[in-house]
Amino acid sequence: MWMDTKAEMEEASRRRASLSQRVLNGLLLCTGDMEHLDKYMQDKLFVLQLAVWGLRGVARVILANNPLSGALILAALYWASPWQGLLGTLGVLASTLTAVVIGQDSAEVSGGHHGFNGMLVSLLMGEFSSAGDWYWWLLLPACLGSATCVFLFSGLSPVLDRWDLPVAVFPFNITIFLYLLCTGPDNPYFPHHTVAPAGTPNPNGTELVAVEVMHGILLGVGQIFACGALGPTLLILGAVLLYSPLLVVHALLGSAVGTLAGLSMAVHHECLYSGLSGFNGALGCMAVGGLFFTFSWRTHLFAIASAFLSAYTDIALSNLLGTVGLPACSWAATLIATLMLLLTGSLAAYRIPTGQVMAPERNLRSRSQWQAGNTTERQSTDV
Amino acid sequence: MWMDTKAEMEEASRRRASLSQRVLNGLLLCTGDMEHLDKYMQDKLFVLQLAVWGLRGVARVILANNPLSGALILAALYWASPWQGLLGTLGVLASTLTAVVIGQDSAEVSGGHHGFNGMLVSLLMGEFSSAGDWYWWLLLPACLGSATCVFLFSGLSPVLDRWDLPVAVFPFNITIFLYLLCTGPDNPYFPHHTVAPAGTPNPNGTELVAVEVMHGILLGVGQIFACGALGPTLLILGAVLLYSPLLVVHALLGSAVGTLAGLSMAVHHECLYSGLSGFNGALGCMAVGGLFFTFSWRTHLFAIASAFLSAYTDIALSNLLGTVGLPACSWAATLIATLMLLLTGSLAAYRIPTGQVMAPERNLRSRSQWQAGNTTERQSTDV
Amino acid sequence: MWMDTKAEMEEASRRRASLSQRVLNGLLLCTGDMEHLDKYMQDKLFVLQLAVWGLRGVARVILANNPLSGALILAALYWASPWQGLLGTLGVLASTLTAVVIGQDSAEVSGGHHGFNGMLVSLLMGEFSSAGDWYWWLLLPACLGSATCVFLFSGLSPVLDRWDLPVAVFPFNITIFLYLLCTGPDNPYFPHHTVAPAGTPNPNGTELVAVEVMHGILLGVGQIFACGALGPTLLILGAVLLYSPLLVVHALLGSAVGTLAGLSMAVHHECLYSGLSGFNGALGCMAVGGLFFTFSWRTHLFAIASAFLSAYTDIALSNLLGTVGLPACSWAATLIATLMLLLTGSLAAYRIPTGQVMAPERNLRSRSQWQAGNTTERQSTDV
Repeated sequence: MWMDTKAEMEEASRRRASLSQRVLNGLLLCTGDMEHLDKYMQDKLFVLQLAVWGLRGVARVILANNPLSGALILAALYWASPWQGLLGTLGVLASTLTAVVIGQDSAEVSGGHHGFNGMLVSLLMGEFSSAGDWYWWLLLPACLGSATCVFLFSGLSPVLDRWDLPVAVFPFNITIFLYLLCTGPDNPYFPHHTVAPAGTPNPNGTELVAVEVMHGILLGVGQIFACGALGPTLLILGAVLLYSPLLVVHALLGSAVGTLAGLSMAVHHECLYSGLSGFNGALGCMAVGGLFFTFSWRTHLFAIASAFLSAYTDIALSNLLGTVGLPACSWAATLIATLMLLLTGSLAAYRIPTGQVMAPERNLRSRSQWQAGNTTERQSTDV
Repeated sequence: MWMDTKAEMEEASRRRASLSQRVLNGLLLCTGDMEHLDKYMQDKLFVLQLAVWGLRGVARVILANNPLSGALILAALYWASPWQGLLGTLGVLASTLTAVVIGQDSAEVSGGHHGFNGMLVSLLMGEFSSAGDWYWWLLLPACLGSATCVFLFSGLSPVLDRWDLPVAVFPFNITIFLYLLCTGPDNPYFPHHTVAPAGTPNPNGTELVAVEVMHGILLGVGQIFACGALGPTLLILGAVLLYSPLLVVHALLGSAVGTLAGLSMAVHHECLYSGLSGFNGALGCMAVGGLFFTFSWRTHLFAIASAFLSAYTDIALSNLLGTVGLPACSWAATLIATLMLLLTGSLAAYRIPTGQVMAPERNLRSRSQWQAGNTTERQSTDV
Repeated sequence: MWMDTKAEMEEASRRRASLSQRVLNGLLLCTGDMEHLDKYMQDKLFVLQLAVWGLRGVARVILANNPLSGALILAALYWASPWQGLLGTLGVLASTLTAVVIGQDSAEVSGGHHGFNGMLVSLLMGEFSSAGDWYWWLLLPACLGSATCVFLFSGLSPVLDRWDLPVAVFPFNITIFLYLLCTGPDNPYFPHHTVAPAGTPNPNGTELVAVEVMHGILLGVGQIFACGALGPTLLILGAVLLYSPLLVVHALLGSAVGTLAGLSMAVHHECLYSGLSGFNGALGCMAVGGLFFTFSWRTHLFAIASAFLSAYTDIALSNLLGTVGLPACSWAATLIATLMLLLTGSLAAYRIPTGQVMAPERNLRSRSQWQAGNTTERQSTDV
């Protein structure tokens, strides 16, 4: 009897352990790049595949590559504003479908590479439109703009590929400029707000509110999706955490650095409070700290430098482009991240080839394995 | 007797046939690229050779490569305005001679590659000048500007060559900007008109005249040479027809697409009527539909997309550059055509290497021969 | 006795000859690139090495590569304004140290390649600042701006390297733009002057003073270091003379050409008098005439063409950038020199590979040796 009970207890504990193990495994399966999903989806319906490609595209806006993160982010956008959520969904679908139609590389399409630019264009068109929500005509330029992104992505990639650079959000930045310039300041069909440069002086006697600035640092991450509400921003942060904790740390760090840079240049308080000062810093910091470079204390320092450079460049571009009524979008972060990827010297040693970029934690592991392999190899050849 | 008559009649009909054959052959010899002329000209006087190179240069402005087309176009320009005709002639000669002097590749010079940018610069200098016709001092910047184009052509070609891209009209667009910026809005020696952006709102109560818009579609082709008169435009269309019927179809289609894009963005009516809305669309459509890509229904669709992109980009650039008083020239079509040439995916399969581009009809034939050859070869190696 | 006296006299004359020879040799050792110094410095203190690297960087601003020239130029800057001298010193040290810290190629660092951009950024920050001399807060952006130049230099070099182009002063031009745009026209911490475009019309009735224009041609060389005083400019010219007499001739020639171009475009008299019209011409002329191309009558003509192009481009850019309150800096000369280096045709035959550029006189000698070697080789293979 006793033996029996003991065996039963062992059995139960084994089962419990295997259950918690399985839950943990299940959770782990949902983090990182989720490549296993791609194999699973291979013979599924096209609509399901398209959904996964689209969700990967949504996550790629914030440099993540995980369909569950994408779903959480999309939920956050619908929470912030259903109209913006609809525009985002439309954008990511329109550009992914365009990529399929004009015969783009299927690995790129299924990795969501053709979705994120289109989504951003749609979101920003909605953000800048002064015609209010549910202005249905806007869906037309949103679709066309998203499709244009695919052309730009496809055309820029052979140029940037010479230096193993990613196309990143150059297509989005170009397309949104073309749209805003095309429609001009007082277009009868597609009116939009004019943008004030960041350097607009504050009215006399306004005091800076520290709590609002803290608030702004958090919102800086949300502003990557043109979302300025706190709740959805926290959900977006959660989505990134699911993909990679390292990326969340760098996102918040970069946003803080960007806000600091904004303070040092006395930008308009509204920019600090809304998170607009922070989001370029966040993107610049995320790209260098862990994603395109193996994480280490050196790349961490370079990530901070990248955040500062992105933030100051953003202020400069905002002041320049403000003179013709254009926003600086994410040009600053895109240009500085590209510069960092081109850098020679000690940072280049940590560079991960663009085709092999994965979640920062995976990058770290594969590099240490690769280095261990290298050492073993060297030892074996030494002998 | 009867036999004799029959033989005579046969002989006469043979002669008639051979005559009409010869006329047809003679006509056919005047169409397309007329490479046979190059061999014939090899041992002729330098002045005659220069004339042929220049006429090829004139035709190349509108993407044709046929000295007779060039002669017809030049006649059209002299018809529209003798002063503009003179400026154009001077520009094409100045730049071709500069290319000879600074030792450019002789195949490029004899192909007219160094003439078309110079010609456009001269024509546009005359167009923007507010000093009136026959202002002889203008010949000085026209010559210098044309010479500058050769430097830019020669310098840009190694850069663009890495991606097998043509230099196209980048040198013209850069040089005319430098000239307009250098002389500024109220230069005492070389005064010129300021340019209103396309997005300037129409005065209230002005109605769009459909006939004028139709008119504008035709004029869009003439505006490639800065010519806004109907008669000369028809002659230019005839000149392109001589080179390639496919190119004419795409030119008119592109101009119509450009006008449509202009309508959708509510540009100033004057732009629609004068053909300024159409010419970038026309150029963008011609480049993709048959010239740099083998003609097929797919390239045809891409050509329409290219026309739309060129037209919208033109409106955007016109609004942007209008803020500093600059015209958008043909930047839009040049950039979009370059983008299309870089495109990966299904369009790239139809790409013709830049060095082998000929008249669209020839491209089509050489491709089908090449494919047939490929098939035969594959079959023969299979055996 | 007589024999003795004769021997003594011979001995004395020999000693005199050897003394003058030694003095001449010593002087010759101080001219040109002074590579022998590098070997001598190898095992010296880091501070001494840094001083030599920095002085090479100072000289490289004006395309020279000689630490003594650098020292003379630095003395000239301290003479013109001790505050500007301090800023320049700080800039060159900050950027050279940044390059060491972020692990740039040691040959580049010791050649002074990372110093000149930082120095220029610091000098120009001081020049444009409206807070007056000895505004100590300015040292902060001066250091950060100089450090940014190293990032830009390191990032641009792999891109430009594809066409064997030098990075030149692109980093300086970009960084100073970012600084000026970031701080905007009325920043509370770092105020600066707004810049009037060159094309600003002169008030009625002002006469051009020929002596002042002559003066301006000389000052054009000083303006390369943002120095507008005559004495220091002459010292700078002396410093360049020490490096290479050919370079001085081209500097003055280019400055004269630039002033001529300014006259032909009726720029504001102040630009002509201060030397601002001349310095881009000077840089454009120096780069082509002897430095990046072996000197010959052909390259001399191309150098004059380059000076004209640089000067006109400078006027154009100044008018364009003036609309947003930015100076044209040395964009014109940098772009035109890059264009000249890309040129195919007869100029390309004289091109010296970027890695082998030395003082013009050395380039000339090594080329004639190389050609002689080639001829001998060809003869020996002919036999």
